[in-house]
Amino acid sequence: MKFGGTSVADLDRIRNVARRVKREVDAGHEVAVVVSAMSGVTNQLVAWVNQVAPLYDAREYDAVVATGEQVTSGLTALALQQLGVNARSWQGWQLPLVSDDAHGKARIMDVSTDEMLRLFAQEKQVAVVAGFQGVAPGNRISTLGRGGSDTSAVALAAALRADRCDIYTDVDGVYTCDPRIVSRARKLEKITYEEMLEMASLGAKVLQTRSVELAMNHRVRVQVLSSFEDRPGTLVVDEDEIVEKQVVSGIAYSRDEAKVTLTKVADKPGVAAAIFGPLADASVNVDMIVQSSSEDGKTTDMTFTVGKSDMERATKLLRESAARVGFGELIADPRVVKVSVIGVGMRSHAGVALTMFRTLAEKGINIQVISTSEIKVSVLVDEQYLELALRALHSAYGLDRQ
Amino acid sequence: MKFGGTSVADLDRIRNVARRVKREVDAGHEVAVVVSAMSGVTNQLVAWVNQVAPLYDAREYDAVVATGEQVTSGLTALALQQLGVNARSWQGWQLPLVSDDAHGKARIMDVSTDEMLRLFAQEKQVAVVAGFQGVAPGNRISTLGRGGSDTSAVALAAALRADRCDIYTDVDGVYTCDPRIVSRARKLEKITYEEMLEMASLGAKVLQTRSVELAMNHRVRVQVLSSFEDRPGTLVVDEDEIVEKQVVSGIAYSRDEAKVTLTKVADKPGVAAAIFGPLADASVNVDMIVQSSSEDGKTTDMTFTVGKSDMERATKLLRESAARVGFGELIADPRVVKVSVIGVGMRSHAGVALTMFRTLAEKGINIQVISTSEIKVSVLVDEQYLELALRALHSAYGLDRQ
Repeated sequence: MKFGGTSVADLDRIRNVARRVKREVDAGHEVAVVVSAMSGVTNQLVAWVNQVAPLYDAREYDAVVATGEQVTSGLTALALQQLGVNARSWQGWQLPLVSDDAHGKARIMDVSTDEMLRLFAQEKQVAVVAGFQGVAPGNRISTLGRGGSDTSAVALAAALRADRCDIYTDVDGVYTCDPRIVSRARKLEKITYEEMLEMASLGAKVLQTRSVELAMNHRVRVQVLSSFEDRPGTLVVDEDEIVEKQVVSGIAYSRDEAKVTLTKVADKPGVAAAIFGPLADASVNVDMIVQSSSEDGKTTDMTFTVGKSDMERATKLLRESAARVGFGELIADPRVVKVSVIGVGMRSHAGVALTMFRTLAEKGINIQVISTSEIKVSVLVDEQYLELALRALHSAYGLDRQ
Repeated sequence: MKFGGTSVADLDRIRNVARRVKREVDAGHEVAVVVSAMSGVTNQLVAWVNQVAPLYDAREYDAVVATGEQVTSGLTALALQQLGVNARSWQGWQLPLVSDDAHGKARIMDVSTDEMLRLFAQEKQVAVVAGFQGVAPGNRISTLGRGGSDTSAVALAAALRADRCDIYTDVDGVYTCDPRIVSRARKLEKITYEEMLEMASLGAKVLQTRSVELAMNHRVRVQVLSSFEDRPGTLVVDEDEIVEKQVVSGIAYSRDEAKVTLTKVADKPGVAAAIFGPLADASVNVDMIVQSSSEDGKTTDMTFTVGKSDMERATKLLRESAARVGFGELIADPRVVKVSVIGVGMRSHAGVALTMFRTLAEKGINIQVISTSEIKVSVLVDEQYLELALRALHSAYGLDRQ
């Protein structure tokens, strides 16, 4: 059972978490708990570190920032004890949860659970593990990066060979689309790891990408559910577990992209490398890429997307690097959104992309860039059409709630 | 170099601490640093624990409360790095600083300094140790109780065989008397451990009693000085180091005592045990005790002091226990103060007590109870005479600043 920052935001909510855990224990389940820092605490600690040392030593950052989860683990153990549940806190170094030494964004190497299992078997002692943290070589405190508590929970569930990893959060599951935009969006009962990965990386901020990858690699069944309501959430599982596969499971979107176009670039070998090499060197991620031949047959137009926050930097770099190979115009446009339809059923169903193009065309929405993968089709459109596009596609793929 | 809560109260003060440490390093000194939590933080953490679990598991209390020093140790290490000083934080469990398992008020068993010394020798790396905490058997985090950071610092200094343990605080040393009351009080250049112990336990809240005891046992030279000023403070040292011993070094006082009198108690064996036994069982500390025979020769009056906060409880217990042996009246009076003159020179000088009694008599101050030890004389007087008594005694013993 993993509880995020909003679920442990104050003492009342920590007591609520304790009641939920007790209910599971009383029902005869063997549980371990992972907690995040009280919401806001991590940001305060990070701000202090940045104010003292803008270019900080990540080992000290970790020592400071890991205290947020340490406090919550102790308070949650106390709240459980108050309800008569035997419980204790575990820090990353106590388990130990061993990580590599990439401080600030460490990767988990190993999780020891022998003692935790022994104490549950002997005295029904529930482990309350401080999420987000581990211990790196040299006995230094490490943290796992943003969303690290989800990763801690999945890693612990894998080590314990748990039946399930329940991620309690402030939403009650994964939806076919953002319910704030598409009112007829439905909560999914189940979704595959692959779909969830696409949803996560495309901006449906329910689960951190890394934790889903880890769950997929170790086949950990993950449930996303609300810590404030008593309803089942969404199960993230292996494809085998889903009997009736939807062709399209959900529609995701991202406002974080910007479109960059270089016109009349010489159409010869080595040009793409000359353009994208300097961007890669500067850690600017390039996502969708389209190359279209121009009318004269000698030049080509290159269109691609970068993160909105990288746009300024990318255009500056391009003016230098592309100048060397020659180009007509450089056009950067942040007023775009990426809309993606996702579903493992696409593998065996043709026509998913066609439905998308036709639906958008009917609404008069121009598609600027297209990219596809095995289980998704993404298009870039003008941001003013975001809501219209999502609602139309949601209906077209038969996802609307009745 | 140990810095208390007010010395690391915010980021500016932490930067100030870093500058002070750098100055010592630049002067060629080998230093280790111990820091407290930012002032106010520990109180907040303690309040949370009490709100979640009024009768808390001290192991969880320790896990929560120890985070205060962890944050400061990391931030201070970062502030030092910003100044170009190689530094790193050390948590209690990392050193390790091993304690017993009396969580919440643990005693230090052992401090390992090999790695710290090696790193200073090899790379001039300054250790910034989180005070107040250690690791107890079973690998649980422990804390050392109020004022524990002073104790951490002295224990570390002892383990390192340091030339000196500098305790930076918000006062600039130990005074002959409280300067807020006696304006002519002088800062002492040196004071013995024994005198400092009496000063500490009698209410001069500069150093925690436990840390002075530890310093005395390991012969650690301690300096109390201000973190906000550039002046030497007061050295707490062995008696041998003080060449010209004052007969009286200082005058302390305590407002924390209450006087309790039982009149006409039967004067027979076992009465004292019957009266004080139940108080001891209830952890009520009894300090000064005077027994005076009454006129009839068959009964006696018993007068003694207890902590002001224990007075209600003590009188309630006494009404029950003393009733069994019989008594006349029970009078409890919280409007008293204890005034003590302290000095190792008393051992070889007679007349110190006489000077005290005579001085108070000249001012018309009635002495209610007297108690003496090898190096101090204490009297209980009406609280309205506190300032008058302190100033008169300060002059009488020749302590006034010229």
